[in-house]
Amino acid sequence: MSILIKDVDALTQNSRRDTLRGVDILIEGNRIEKIGKKLKEKAEFKIDGKGKLAVPGLINTHTHTAMTLFRGYADDMRFWEAWPGKVWPAEKKVKAGDVRWGAMLGCIEMMRSGTTCFLDNYFFMEETARAVKDSGIRANLAYGMIDLDDPTKRKKELKIGEEFVKEFHGKADGRISCSFSPHAPYTCSGELLLKAKEFSQKYGVLTQIHVSETRKEVFDSIKEYGKRPVEYLDSIGFLNNRVVAAHCVWITKREVRMLGEKGVKVSYNPVSNMKLASGGVAPIPQMLESRVCVTFGTDGAVSNNSLSMLETMKVGALLQKAHLWDARVLSAQQALDFATRNGASALCVNAGSIEEGKLADLFLMNLDSSNMLPANNYVSNIVYSSNPSNVSHSIIDGKLVMEEGRILTIDEEKVFENVRKIAERLTRN
Amino acid sequence: MSILIKDVDALTQNSRRDTLRGVDILIEGNRIEKIGKKLKEKAEFKIDGKGKLAVPGLINTHTHTAMTLFRGYADDMRFWEAWPGKVWPAEKKVKAGDVRWGAMLGCIEMMRSGTTCFLDNYFFMEETARAVKDSGIRANLAYGMIDLDDPTKRKKELKIGEEFVKEFHGKADGRISCSFSPHAPYTCSGELLLKAKEFSQKYGVLTQIHVSETRKEVFDSIKEYGKRPVEYLDSIGFLNNRVVAAHCVWITKREVRMLGEKGVKVSYNPVSNMKLASGGVAPIPQMLESRVCVTFGTDGAVSNNSLSMLETMKVGALLQKAHLWDARVLSAQQALDFATRNGASALCVNAGSIEEGKLADLFLMNLDSSNMLPANNYVSNIVYSSNPSNVSHSIIDGKLVMEEGRILTIDEEKVFENVRKIAERLTRN
Repeated sequence: MSILIKDVDALTQNSRRDTLRGVDILIEGNRIEKIGKKLKEKAEFKIDGKGKLAVPGLINTHTHTAMTLFRGYADDMRFWEAWPGKVWPAEKKVKAGDVRWGAMLGCIEMMRSGTTCFLDNYFFMEETARAVKDSGIRANLAYGMIDLDDPTKRKKELKIGEEFVKEFHGKADGRISCSFSPHAPYTCSGELLLKAKEFSQKYGVLTQIHVSETRKEVFDSIKEYGKRPVEYLDSIGFLNNRVVAAHCVWITKREVRMLGEKGVKVSYNPVSNMKLASGGVAPIPQMLESRVCVTFGTDGAVSNNSLSMLETMKVGALLQKAHLWDARVLSAQQALDFATRNGASALCVNAGSIEEGKLADLFLMNLDSSNMLPANNYVSNIVYSSNPSNVSHSIIDGKLVMEEGRILTIDEEKVFENVRKIAERLTRN
Repeated sequence: MSILIKDVDALTQNSRRDTLRGVDILIEGNRIEKIGKKLKEKAEFKIDGKGKLAVPGLINTHTHTAMTLFRGYADDMRFWEAWPGKVWPAEKKVKAGDVRWGAMLGCIEMMRSGTTCFLDNYFFMEETARAVKDSGIRANLAYGMIDLDDPTKRKKELKIGEEFVKEFHGKADGRISCSFSPHAPYTCSGELLLKAKEFSQKYGVLTQIHVSETRKEVFDSIKEYGKRPVEYLDSIGFLNNRVVAAHCVWITKREVRMLGEKGVKVSYNPVSNMKLASGGVAPIPQMLESRVCVTFGTDGAVSNNSLSMLETMKVGALLQKAHLWDARVLSAQQALDFATRNGASALCVNAGSIEEGKLADLFLMNLDSSNMLPANNYVSNIVYSSNPSNVSHSIIDGKLVMEEGRILTIDEEKVFENVRKIAERLTRN
């Protein structure tokens, strides 16, 4: 398929952060073939880009997509009441097919808010893979492994994790990548962590893990290992540049330097950290100083409860400014970089900018909207003013998946109907 | 005009916070006439409410609507660089007609995000009044007075403020109320503050003022008066139950008690406080303990940069949870109360809930949306998951002002065109 977007403004997010005015963007296959004024080339599908802004697709580096099923089910509660009291019992009732519909709902929500790629760990991941395949979005998926120091469980978890990677990595014309995901240092033995690392090298894929989300976790780590979580992970040789570490909220400057030295990618999840009252604030300026690649994650729909990266960029910038008493910290441009260029770099996806040769993962926003005017600053408007109502088109892997607010790949009504039924069953006491 | 909304779910926000399922809502004139199952009454206009949720209109208790003109113009800068360096010089170029179009843009943005009423202070307020009249929204408006201790200026300011109230209070079929707005204790003399209070009693209208937004302001107040801002305002006899105080970020428990005892209403502006790095966090739990009526404000579009109260409710709840390390603080229900019932109470508007006899100020949300499902909890979904794309209809003062995302009262394109031209002139160096 080829698509020609005519006469559009574009935030390239290239190395010079060029803003182009009134250009044509030609997409051939799954790539951006050509960008220029008044292109002569023909295409099978033409989009009138006048009054629209093309933006590189947003990349969500931490979520559990199928958890949309529990949206609004355990809010305003302490984590240690909400999860054991509500979320885990409900999750016990989850069947494989439920994950498919929950993930499908999440994929739609993400595509409607400019997200073109996400990193996910959960269970029944073959069903999330199916939702990714059907919806047309791009994703990197992992089965979330937990062994709680039990060797039998460890073996079983590694088997599921490895088989998932073997079966799905590179599927859906390459839109699906896979990774290994030991859940966290406090739920996984050192053996599991190192085996996950070994597998990630063997298969040439990423590792994702939750790190230092709460104070309790840090306290327990010091008690058990005499080391803080990042120090511990470093001491056993787990950290490398294939690791995407979510949260990293309660970490020291020394740990930040370790992350930087080992090339670990960080997924900053401001909304989740605030909503769950994790208390800490990820030390973003220190991370940038240590050359850590910082990206944004929404986390799952119980912890957020939205999967909109547009919102996450804003809240992420606001939180840093408020916390550090400095309005200059985490600028709109930096936030957009985290969500595009850095996300692509962290997930090893050849996207994150609108440039010839890159994957055609991008979305269009309506500039003629009450909340997007005046256009004093496109980047500011995206990060601080926009919302999903401004997203009109989404193109992923060169395919149009949303056109003027209409999802083209899946039957939304059917997804809604299934989710309604499933959620009722799961959350009925 | 009469409107009948058929078969809708409704969050009444009545004293029992009842959620109604599949009811009809009959609106006659500007009031909610009747709520019940399968009403037999006829109406001139019928709305199919199936799959929709009726919510009391949100009330924004602090903004400067026309400042949409400067959206994105002075971001990621320190306040004392952004305002004197960019905003004030640009404001000097503002002509009366500019305010009209900027305010119109803001009114559209608010109606599109569920807001039906706002409290505003700025200049050329007759133009904001015109935008309110034309757009169909409800508002309480004041000319923002500043005398900097200069008696000549004081006289002039009071004259403008008083004439505005005399001319516009009760206009547009009662949709426009007026108030007096001495800008802040640090920009207004005691004489101006007390004269504003006197006028507010004389005309039976509200007073609005900025209080304790920054540390500098508190420091200066102690230096000048030996008192913190709320203490100072109390000592001169300014505080009473007609005062709406915006921000109140840097206040002591003693000041919170003063606000409670005097019945002062507080406008909590979390996004603005975070974006401008005011540093403090409004002590909401202490305010509630002292029975202060807490409401939400977005502040102007330079400080936010969105006028969406949906976003402000979420960020307001998140900020409290994160700041106080307690996920239970400021629940979704409390946030919605602040934005509806409390806002109405603060602005003395007979709205804020969907009940027979109340003003018909409400909006409809599409429940069948990827980010609003499942419907485990309507209130959670509105506060934590929704965004303006979910708002389909807006009814204000009994009139349909937005229908399925289409603004009926004003020509949006014309507003956009004017705003584009004006903003270019104002922000050109």
